[in-house]
Amino acid sequence: MAPTLKLNSGYEMPQVGFGLWKVDQATAADTVYNAIKAGYRLFDGACDYGNEKECGEGVARAIKEGLVKREELFIVSKLWQTFHDEDKVEPITRKQLADWQIDYFDLFLIHFPAALEYVDPKVRYPPGWFYDGESEVRWSKTTLQQTWGAMEKLVEKKLARSIGISNYQAQSVYDALIYAKIRPATLQIEHHPYLQQPDLVNLAQKEGIVVTAYSSFGPTGFMELDMPRAKSAAPLMEHALIKEIAAKHKKTPAQVLLRWATQRGLAVIPKTSRPEVLAQNLDSTTFDLESSDLEKIAEMDLNIRFNKPTNYFSADKLFLFG
Amino acid sequence: MAPTLKLNSGYEMPQVGFGLWKVDQATAADTVYNAIKAGYRLFDGACDYGNEKECGEGVARAIKEGLVKREELFIVSKLWQTFHDEDKVEPITRKQLADWQIDYFDLFLIHFPAALEYVDPKVRYPPGWFYDGESEVRWSKTTLQQTWGAMEKLVEKKLARSIGISNYQAQSVYDALIYAKIRPATLQIEHHPYLQQPDLVNLAQKEGIVVTAYSSFGPTGFMELDMPRAKSAAPLMEHALIKEIAAKHKKTPAQVLLRWATQRGLAVIPKTSRPEVLAQNLDSTTFDLESSDLEKIAEMDLNIRFNKPTNYFSADKLFLFG
Repeated sequence: MAPTLKLNSGYEMPQVGFGLWKVDQATAADTVYNAIKAGYRLFDGACDYGNEKECGEGVARAIKEGLVKREELFIVSKLWQTFHDEDKVEPITRKQLADWQIDYFDLFLIHFPAALEYVDPKVRYPPGWFYDGESEVRWSKTTLQQTWGAMEKLVEKKLARSIGISNYQAQSVYDALIYAKIRPATLQIEHHPYLQQPDLVNLAQKEGIVVTAYSSFGPTGFMELDMPRAKSAAPLMEHALIKEIAAKHKKTPAQVLLRWATQRGLAVIPKTSRPEVLAQNLDSTTFDLESSDLEKIAEMDLNIRFNKPTNYFSADKLFLFG
Repeated sequence: MAPTLKLNSGYEMPQVGFGLWKVDQATAADTVYNAIKAGYRLFDGACDYGNEKECGEGVARAIKEGLVKREELFIVSKLWQTFHDEDKVEPITRKQLADWQIDYFDLFLIHFPAALEYVDPKVRYPPGWFYDGESEVRWSKTTLQQTWGAMEKLVEKKLARSIGISNYQAQSVYDALIYAKIRPATLQIEHHPYLQQPDLVNLAQKEGIVVTAYSSFGPTGFMELDMPRAKSAAPLMEHALIKEIAAKHKKTPAQVLLRWATQRGLAVIPKTSRPEVLAQNLDSTTFDLESSDLEKIAEMDLNIRFNKPTNYFSADKLFLFG
């Protein structure tokens, strides 16, 4: 079992979870089921991952077989941008809960701070970034403050125990801290040695917001997406410094990358399909890096962001991280 | 005279202006007066620069002597963070106008997207970042949307012809475009070959917002502030590529740096105390760089930001660019 972090909502969140991005539908149910068997309790999903039904099947099977109780799990999902309009937030949350076969999320996040025009789930689901499914960006008229207000109602209605944000820049976080009646419990961001974002992490930690790191393995997680930028960066798992630190501690490079984040108070959500790695990732909090290790990894920062729309789409219309 | 750019407010703005940051009180009046004499029409000021009265004296002298008429000038100023509360915006604007001895600003900007608790001008002016003048950060409860609403009222009351924003990240711009009744006319940002911010510039230009570049000479402008980070970066004026391009066009490195911005549609606001440079800067739009020059300068981007609070204050409390 992973240690937990106390959220500002009062709930405890496992510090190591399983990330469901890029887990395909065909294997998602078994993946979740096997991860629960291996001791995982936190699952990080999203509408956009296109596999919430299948993940829900894995959860249901594990609960049915008595491997785990619902209240022992910590299920995270996210609001996609096309559902930012205030009247769309609750209905889509209910649909996502139904897909998961549960009646509350432990944590529900605004996936990206960008409001897009509503796309009916009957037309296309998950809807993606583009109104026409191809290239047309249609902005909604809904502010981030309005969407956050609708997120707060999910807590009132007990559809989400905690609510949070993802992919916010510092200024968006500061503004949210002003208008929020319920403060964001977590901030989920891309975070690895090539994109450390110290100012953003410091801001969140100073404000009592737990930071969840995604893409902890850096470019490796983007290779399967055929992203040129990811191919240009040296793989972190084979980086001399990471390998050296791993050898010294008799751990894997992946464990070093995860521990680098968790030792600094962040949560992580690695993904793997290999059983031995599943166990290693979960076990990655049972050793400590030396402060000199942390300092050397800090020097690896290149401020390279992989997960941004302008890296995916030739249509340069979504400049969310400028 | 500089060419002008048409703003979305309908007004024309000179593309080359004079930036008043770091112009000391003792010389400000003469500096403004001499710049007007040299042909400058745009002056970029701010409460925070601590020299608005003196700048106003320079303007008044030039008008009195018949060098220029008020309507031929384009005077820019900025709202400091301690005046973000809705009821504080108009009074401080009126005070700033009185300092300038004018009755409207051509352009008034939100200086930084961060709302700090009000400090009475009688207590300290300009107030700076800290409530106690030293290190205590006190956030206001005012959202960026509320402050923008108060800025819009300045237009209604004819205290500002155009209004804009400064130091906004992309996400803050997108949110502003949703809640704004009057769209920001300009976005002023740090912009030089070491901090090009292409996504942010593209976003603004796509949305019809004119980008004004400040600190066009990069680290040079920060040397006088004794910033270690600025000393670590190679001076742009002495950069081999910039010097080579300058020699080819028989221009100064400064003119190349300014033209690199203006040729791409940005406005610039250089500052100098040397008469010959004053003329050269203003004259920097009269030649064109080759596209290969532009491409080579694009490759110089290091994504190094000099003008951020965490570079000035050991008290790490203002993570505005994370």
